Amino acid sequence: MADAIRVAILGASGYTGAELLRVLLRHPRVRIVALTADRKAGEGIDTVFPQFTGINLPKLVTIKEVDWSGVDAVFCALPHGTTQEVIAGLPQHLKIVDLSADFRLRDIAEYAKWYGHEHRAPKLQQEAVYGLTELYRKDVAAARLVANPGCYPTSAELPLIPLLQADQIDPDDIVIDAKSGVSGAGRALKEGSLYCEASEGTHAYGIASHRHGPEIEQMLSEAVGRPIVVNFTPHLMPMNRGMLSSIYVKTRPGVSADDLRATLLQRYANEPFIQVLPQGVAPQTRHVRGTNMTHIGVFADRVKGRAMLFSAIDNLMKGASGQAVQNFNVMYGLPETMGLEQIALFP
Amino acid sequence: MADAIRVAILGASGYTGAELLRVLLRHPRVRIVALTADRKAGEGIDTVFPQFTGINLPKLVTIKEVDWSGVDAVFCALPHGTTQEVIAGLPQHLKIVDLSADFRLRDIAEYAKWYGHEHRAPKLQQEAVYGLTELYRKDVAAARLVANPGCYPTSAELPLIPLLQADQIDPDDIVIDAKSGVSGAGRALKEGSLYCEASEGTHAYGIASHRHGPEIEQMLSEAVGRPIVVNFTPHLMPMNRGMLSSIYVKTRPGVSADDLRATLLQRYANEPFIQVLPQGVAPQTRHVRGTNMTHIGVFADRVKGRAMLFSAIDNLMKGASGQAVQNFNVMYGLPETMGLEQIALFP
Amino acid sequence: MADAIRVAILGASGYTGAELLRVLLRHPRVRIVALTADRKAGEGIDTVFPQFTGINLPKLVTIKEVDWSGVDAVFCALPHGTTQEVIAGLPQHLKIVDLSADFRLRDIAEYAKWYGHEHRAPKLQQEAVYGLTELYRKDVAAARLVANPGCYPTSAELPLIPLLQADQIDPDDIVIDAKSGVSGAGRALKEGSLYCEASEGTHAYGIASHRHGPEIEQMLSEAVGRPIVVNFTPHLMPMNRGMLSSIYVKTRPGVSADDLRATLLQRYANEPFIQVLPQGVAPQTRHVRGTNMTHIGVFADRVKGRAMLFSAIDNLMKGASGQAVQNFNVMYGLPETMGLEQIALFP
Amino acid sequence: MADAIRVAILGASGYTGAELLRVLLRHPRVRIVALTADRKAGEGIDTVFPQFTGINLPKLVTIKEVDWSGVDAVFCALPHGTTQEVIAGLPQHLKIVDLSADFRLRDIAEYAKWYGHEHRAPKLQQEAVYGLTELYRKDVAAARLVANPGCYPTSAELPLIPLLQADQIDPDDIVIDAKSGVSGAGRALKEGSLYCEASEGTHAYGIASHRHGPEIEQMLSEAVGRPIVVNFTPHLMPMNRGMLSSIYVKTRPGVSADDLRATLLQRYANEPFIQVLPQGVAPQTRHVRGTNMTHIGVFADRVKGRAMLFSAIDNLMKGASGQAVQNFNVMYGLPETMGLEQIALFP
Repeated sequence: MADAIRVAILGASGYTGAELLRVLLRHPRVRIVALTADRKAGEGIDTVFPQFTGINLPKLVTIKEVDWSGVDAVFCALPHGTTQEVIAGLPQHLKIVDLSADFRLRDIAEYAKWYGHEHRAPKLQQEAVYGLTELYRKDVAAARLVANPGCYPTSAELPLIPLLQADQIDPDDIVIDAKSGVSGAGRALKEGSLYCEASEGTHAYGIASHRHGPEIEQMLSEAVGRPIVVNFTPHLMPMNRGMLSSIYVKTRPGVSADDLRATLLQRYANEPFIQVLPQGVAPQTRHVRGTNMTHIGVFADRVKGRAMLFSAIDNLMKGASGQAVQNFNVMYGLPETMGLEQIALFP
Repeated sequence: MADAIRVAILGASGYTGAELLRVLLRHPRVRIVALTADRKAGEGIDTVFPQFTGINLPKLVTIKEVDWSGVDAVFCALPHGTTQEVIAGLPQHLKIVDLSADFRLRDIAEYAKWYGHEHRAPKLQQEAVYGLTELYRKDVAAARLVANPGCYPTSAELPLIPLLQADQIDPDDIVIDAKSGVSGAGRALKEGSLYCEASEGTHAYGIASHRHGPEIEQMLSEAVGRPIVVNFTPHLMPMNRGMLSSIYVKTRPGVSADDLRATLLQRYANEPFIQVLPQGVAPQTRHVRGTNMTHIGVFADRVKGRAMLFSAIDNLMKGASGQAVQNFNVMYGLPETMGLEQIALFP
Repeated sequence: MADAIRVAILGASGYTGAELLRVLLRHPRVRIVALTADRKAGEGIDTVFPQFTGINLPKLVTIKEVDWSGVDAVFCALPHGTTQEVIAGLPQHLKIVDLSADFRLRDIAEYAKWYGHEHRAPKLQQEAVYGLTELYRKDVAAARLVANPGCYPTSAELPLIPLLQADQIDPDDIVIDAKSGVSGAGRALKEGSLYCEASEGTHAYGIASHRHGPEIEQMLSEAVGRPIVVNFTPHLMPMNRGMLSSIYVKTRPGVSADDLRATLLQRYANEPFIQVLPQGVAPQTRHVRGTNMTHIGVFADRVKGRAMLFSAIDNLMKGASGQAVQNFNVMYGLPETMGLEQIALFP
Repeated sequence: MADAIRVAILGASGYTGAELLRVLLRHPRVRIVALTADRKAGEGIDTVFPQFTGINLPKLVTIKEVDWSGVDAVFCALPHGTTQEVIAGLPQHLKIVDLSADFRLRDIAEYAKWYGHEHRAPKLQQEAVYGLTELYRKDVAAARLVANPGCYPTSAELPLIPLLQADQIDPDDIVIDAKSGVSGAGRALKEGSLYCEASEGTHAYGIASHRHGPEIEQMLSEAVGRPIVVNFTPHLMPMNRGMLSSIYVKTRPGVSADDLRATLLQRYANEPFIQVLPQGVAPQTRHVRGTNMTHIGVFADRVKGRAMLFSAIDNLMKGASGQAVQNFNVMYGLPETMGLEQIALFP
């Protein structure tokens, strides 16, 4: 692999870090040269994630220990808030895909409001490109720093933005009822993530207060050309991975559900990672498990003038690490599907 | 138990039948005198449901074999469609709680449209009382035949009807995104109910075509005084039991989420089976598991003029067998909570 | 309830605490007068366990705040290690059922070896009675302090002790492969208890080192009359509650599996909480879910001279809080099933 | 792909069929030319398994419809019993990997005893090679018909055979307590495979009567050189996929658990699909999910002279379709890992 791109993963001991590793280890152009995990520095990744037993990989180190001269690209899977300072401190020659929320909100006042502190790298924020690949591919191709979208925003924006741009639905009447597997909460020790607290039941959380709300609104507002507000309500599902957004919309007069589907079919006709399903077929998260795919279904409502969109992704793949690699491929001019050819693990 | 009410359960080999048995076996005024299951007639219930091993119970028999002269009350847990003829053939001295959908729709034309055949007991249909206990208690008390509500309708109607009656929300802009555990599909052998098909994933089903839709609309229309149509979209959750309805509504001008909560608090102040949760607390289905409780949460939306209602029940209890026993208690003038004092099994 | 027994639960914010509360709230002779949870003192139990919303209960307090003059009996659901000092400090008029492991091992040297520190209440240890109710009922009836057995020991000892006492199996060739739901690990924040770490997979843990090993061996040794060592290997199952011990034994010459079953049937003929299942029926944990029942199955092996025992309990009930209440009933001369009449919640 | 091997999958509508498809679609030397499913003939595979939506694949046909002149190799994923006649009717130029049990038992009298009917292709039976790749690689390389091992046998034989061959354990004292995910039961409609029957609980099944028992005994007997009988007890786990065999053995005098591990480490040193884990590390099925890996752990027992082996595989991969492709690679002289480089999907 003489022409390998040398990659570092920052935050390799979390679930999105492990998922990056799973994908990148089979990426034909990538060589993993550094894995960081400040608290677990010195350990092998196989003690942290035994699924990597037997695979030759660098030891976990602290971020400070990384020799950046031997690194070309960085995937940053660190917690929100700390990321911006870490990235601000990295050398300029690195290409960076950041999976945190730190560079997603363009308005740093909005950032401060939702995250409770001033943004610590406002210049970098201006440089960052929002990496919803299918819709911002050109910007991503030219970017040095990509802000990888959130999982909920990815699943909601992919079906909604083309329809808003086509003015086929009312931007002021959108309800996004979203459902996520528990891996979306990461590997942190929280009572709500315990098996007994998350299994055999469901509930809404972050109601009217989840930080993915403003991210969704930023992108939908851009599509419409004026600020809009939407209902976004996440629910926790008793499953490891998978995300379904059930989206309830009001159609413009004369626009049918079939029209909506036609718009999406046309817009995503050549997209390898998006399948707009035939009439009557509802997407299931299990059918995209472990893949970078998005399955979208469109249905007419019994209420006149209303329709429903269903969008299924794997929150750790298209909702995080998969899309990050997709963006990386675009940044390096590689085939977009490279390393992302997985077929869903079902059952 | 000299003054026992002698009860027969028709369809005891299904999940709602087993749940009736679980509850009624500990009901101080009930004696189980007959259990039917046409295909399993001759077997002991403990071979069909081993949790009843060691409990003295009548053998399973066919419906024809039951000696009705020794029966006072019937719980009918048979499949939709066959129930109406069975009930039409029962003696008049019996009080009946029917858990099927056969007598829920008052308009037999609507029934024919949704169920694909003419109603076979239209007179009985006129006699039947809709058993949403908290809201139709007086009718239930006087009824001989109670049509026990569906699980989805129960979870949606309890929060919505008082708010529609108070004219605090717009009846023409209601979205009900409902989530159910797999036991709602019963014990029938369907591919979609297999473990591998229902676990580790979620999806919508019966989109704009589920038969609980017209039932919900019938009751909401009655509350409003004119026909209304709502969005009702059920989803299958990877869990045994539990049901959550996330309901998105438009409030009348000047009406806040706190106003909605106040209305529900007042309406349900003395109801033993309904808890309207404090501001900021979202109901979880696991906290009502195995009980007849309904937990309701009310939240303001970030979208102006909109609000959210969350309603959690156990689909086999308040959504089926629990409410059936509650109705039975009302029909016999017993304390409404008799036999229904279970506390949630969590974890 | 003029003649109520006034009960305090120490450690009410854990899963066994909540399960005690679930059972005792419906116990006709119990009045809950104190709930402790040192870290959550001042909160209502309904904020810690929302399933108790709407039930009138004392606030959580620290142990120091309890007025013992108004308490008759204590259920102690505190972590291992801290319990012995707490109990040593309690007034003598209290009857105590301790759910921790602190008083189970009679040999304080053995205790020190397995728990890593000297026992801090050796006198109390001598007083404590091991509360495997069916086999030590007389001792329990006379006890002031009952050491409630561990979940694994309960499930293993109930089938094994009668067979060892009857000398029908070889005490030196016993393999106990045990399987537990995740609630057995409690509500503590451990990585291994996270949903994503415990779902969709299984593994052995505490291999040849689990602290329930010496407890099992103590009781089996007592049954045999000399020290024995057994294989005991716990496994973590992706489920909330339930415990299955699959036990592989060598039978004495001429002894068949049917003989073993006959011995157990006879020994447990009048026990309300033990069902020895008919030939060919394998116990399932889901059929005892939420109950104090033990289901035992006995099978011949294809290997000559060997047999298998399967023993299913609910780890939080017969394996903890249920048996604790059973012991409490015995200590107070109440009917042993009082408050423990639950039927399994299945599905 | 001029040099593609043209492959047909018989029985593509079951779980092992789908898993074959998942793997073979990414196999660089394979072209899928036929998919059969007698009952679903005429449908697209994407209606049967929506995870294949958007992938260009032949329609499902009946076996009779296949043009064998365009096929080089066959994976046969048909039900037990019907397979032998189907394979007997196939042209001789085909290489065949059979995933059913039809050709695993060499003794057709033994077959008749366990399967209830005479073997219908006894000549083919003589030709068939047992495809436990790591241990029968040479035979597989020369075979035209490979009988792919059962999932339980694979997980039990891999750790046991080398130890029996080295005479380090007692062949007459082996207990195999095995645990499987529900996908092992296939997609057939059985009550026991329903979500509500298989979730939130565990139980043993096929006790002393499972058909994988004689298969295991055949292979262990061959390793020992005389007929042996073992305890083999399968359990159903509430999970989709994954299989753990916990194996309890008696060591030969002077042989330690470390010795056993050393033997396995040496034997499997160059095997890409077997990891013998370090001392103290217990294998977890989730860490091999979706892969062809086997993780093996070896532990000393507290009982003197005894040890424990734990062996984790994915029942649909190394236990079925993965090992089938591994055998296919061997039969065609391809690198054994071709198409099988998946890393575990965890979480």
